[in-house]
Amino acid sequence: MLQTPAYAALDARSPLAPFSIERREPGPHEVLIDILYCGVCHSDLHQVRDDWGAARFPMVPGHEIVGRVVRVGDAVTTHKTGDVVGVGVFVDSCRRCPSCQAGEEQYCDLGISATYNGFDRDADGRLDKSRPTYGGYSTRITVDAEYVLRIPDAIPLDRAAPLLCAGITTYSPLKHFGVKPGDKVAVVGLGGLGHMGVKFAVAMGTHVTVLSTSESKRDDALALGAHEFAATREPGAFRRLARQFDLILDTAAAPHDYNAYLNLLRLDGTMVLVGLPDEPMPVSAGVLTSRRRRLAGSMIGGIRETQEMLDFCAAHGIASDIELIDIADINEAYERMLKGDVRYRFVIDIASLRQ
Amino acid sequence: MLQTPAYAALDARSPLAPFSIERREPGPHEVLIDILYCGVCHSDLHQVRDDWGAARFPMVPGHEIVGRVVRVGDAVTTHKTGDVVGVGVFVDSCRRCPSCQAGEEQYCDLGISATYNGFDRDADGRLDKSRPTYGGYSTRITVDAEYVLRIPDAIPLDRAAPLLCAGITTYSPLKHFGVKPGDKVAVVGLGGLGHMGVKFAVAMGTHVTVLSTSESKRDDALALGAHEFAATREPGAFRRLARQFDLILDTAAAPHDYNAYLNLLRLDGTMVLVGLPDEPMPVSAGVLTSRRRRLAGSMIGGIRETQEMLDFCAAHGIASDIELIDIADINEAYERMLKGDVRYRFVIDIASLRQ
Repeated sequence: MLQTPAYAALDARSPLAPFSIERREPGPHEVLIDILYCGVCHSDLHQVRDDWGAARFPMVPGHEIVGRVVRVGDAVTTHKTGDVVGVGVFVDSCRRCPSCQAGEEQYCDLGISATYNGFDRDADGRLDKSRPTYGGYSTRITVDAEYVLRIPDAIPLDRAAPLLCAGITTYSPLKHFGVKPGDKVAVVGLGGLGHMGVKFAVAMGTHVTVLSTSESKRDDALALGAHEFAATREPGAFRRLARQFDLILDTAAAPHDYNAYLNLLRLDGTMVLVGLPDEPMPVSAGVLTSRRRRLAGSMIGGIRETQEMLDFCAAHGIASDIELIDIADINEAYERMLKGDVRYRFVIDIASLRQ
Repeated sequence: MLQTPAYAALDARSPLAPFSIERREPGPHEVLIDILYCGVCHSDLHQVRDDWGAARFPMVPGHEIVGRVVRVGDAVTTHKTGDVVGVGVFVDSCRRCPSCQAGEEQYCDLGISATYNGFDRDADGRLDKSRPTYGGYSTRITVDAEYVLRIPDAIPLDRAAPLLCAGITTYSPLKHFGVKPGDKVAVVGLGGLGHMGVKFAVAMGTHVTVLSTSESKRDDALALGAHEFAATREPGAFRRLARQFDLILDTAAAPHDYNAYLNLLRLDGTMVLVGLPDEPMPVSAGVLTSRRRRLAGSMIGGIRETQEMLDFCAAHGIASDIELIDIADINEAYERMLKGDVRYRFVIDIASLRQ
C-alpha cells in the first residue's frame, strides 16, 4: 500500500483538513497516477456537507483529476509511464449491463463506482461496501486503465481538470440531443457548468443566448462567445424570448420555474436539466403539449464520449476558465462557491499538497 | 345561410339544450357535410362548463365528426358529393407558419381554428373574433376541404368518429417518438384516449402494459390486446416495474405522481403526456438525469398524419369502442363521463337531432 497525503472531511460539519489515505499498487489492468490538478465541483461541497444524505466519512472529495502516469500494470496497453491523463466522476462500472456495453457507463445498471464517496467493486462487478473510494484531493490515485482518459497536449493541464466533470456534463447533452449548426441554444446559468456549455455550443456552430438572473454576467457571457444575453429578472424577458430555442441547457441548481423556461422552446424543442435543484419543480402539462416540448435530464457522459469531448476541446482550443488555488485554501474556496464567487472553476494545484 | 339544428350550452351552468345555428354555403374551397356521428370528448365537458376559463357562449361542442359530403365548392378536387369524411379538432390554421408548412397545423403559430369554441379566420389567416365556430353536435358543417379527412370504407362510421381526436392524440406521439416493434410501451389510464393507445401500440408491434389505478380494468385491458396489466395502487407495483419501458403514453388527466411513472422508464425512455391535469405536477430533476429520461407532451396531430392514422386503422381493423347515444341523452352522458362510466367513448347518433 502507498501511504498518500490527502485532504479529507471527517464529518459533515468540520472543514477539510490534512489526512492520509492508502492507495493500492496498480494491478495488471491498472495505472498509478501522480495527481497534478483537481477541479472543485459544486457536488464536492454538497457531499462533504452531506446535503444529499449519502455521505460516508472520512471523505476525500475530487473527481476532476489530471495527473501523470507513474506506474502501469502488466496488461495495460493504452497508457504508459509519463502520459498525462484524466480521471472523471467514476473509476469503474459493472461492464456487463446494457449501458456499460453501450459505452454509457455513467448509467450502469449496478451503479458506477464514484471516484469518491463510492465503492470499488468485487470480482463479479458488484459494488463492494468494504472498499470506499477516495478522490482527487490527494497526491495519487490507482485506477483501472479503461476508466482513464488521455489529455491532449493542446490543453493546459490545470484548465483541463474541470473538463472531466463540468466539461462532459455539458458536452454530452448538446451532442446527445443533436444540436446542429444554426440551432438556437440557450444556456441557463453561467457557473462552472454554464460557462463550459457556452463554449461547446458556440464551437458546435449554434447561436447561443445566455440566460442569467441578473445583468452582472452579461460581459462575461459575451466574452465567452455567447451571441446574446438576457437577464431573466428584467420585465418582459420571458415574453420576448418565447418560442425561440431549439435546446435549452439548464445548469441552474437553485429552484427556478421550469415552465417559464420551457415556454421559450419552439416546436419540438428540448430543455435538458444538468443541475439538480433540491426539490421537485412543478411542470405544467400544457406547456409541454402545446408545442410538443421535451424536458430531459442528462448525467455526465461515458468514457468514450469523455475522450471525444477532450479531443474536441483540443481541436477547438477549449479549456475551462479557472482560479488556481492551494489545497490549504479549499475551505475558503467552498465559501466563495456558495456565493457564486468563482470564475468559473476552482482548481487545486496538488503540488501544494506535496510540500 | 343554412339554418341548422344543434345542441348548445347557453352558459357554463346550464345543461345542453336544442338550439339553432347558421351554417354558410360552401365557398369555392369548402365542402358542406351532413353530420352522421359525433364523438363526445372529455374536453367537450370541460369547455361547456368553462373549466379552462376560455368558454364563449352559446357553445355547440363536438370535434369528432363523421359525415357525408352533400355539396362541394367549385375548386374542390379532393372530395365529392357522397364521400364519407371526418372533421377533427380544428377546421383551419394560418397555412403560412413553419408548423403549417410542415403539416403540423395543430401547432400553428397563429393558433388553430378550433372546430368549436374557436374562430374562423380572415383573409390574412388571422383568427377573426367576430366569427365563432360551432362544432359537431349539429346536423351539418361547412369546412375547408383541406381540413377534411377521408374515412376509409373499412371503418364502421360510428366507431370512426372518436378517431378524429382520441385516435390521433394517441397515434401521433407513438409515431413521433419512434416506437418500434419489440419496444416496451406502457399506457397510463384506460379511458377514451388510453383504449386507443393500447390498440395502436399493439398494432405497431410493441409489448403493451396498461397501468391503471385499480384492478377493475384488467380484463378490459387484456381484451383490448394489452400484453400485461398492472394496478398501480398495489403495494410494490412501481418498484416491480422500475426501469422497464421505452415509452409511457400518459393519458391520465387526474393529478398523479409523474416521478413515480418516470422511474418506470429505462435509459433514454420517454413519457409523453396527452392528458392535462388541472395543476402543474412536481418533477424531480434527478429522476430525469439518472437515466437520461424525457418528459414530453403531444397534442392531437396534423391533417396529413390524421389521414395516415385513419388509413392505419383501416389496414389493422382498428376502431373505437363506443356507446352510441341519442343527442337527448348528452347531459346524462356527461355525468357518466365524470364518473369514468363509459366504454370507451360516447358517440352521438346525429340522426336523433334530425327527428
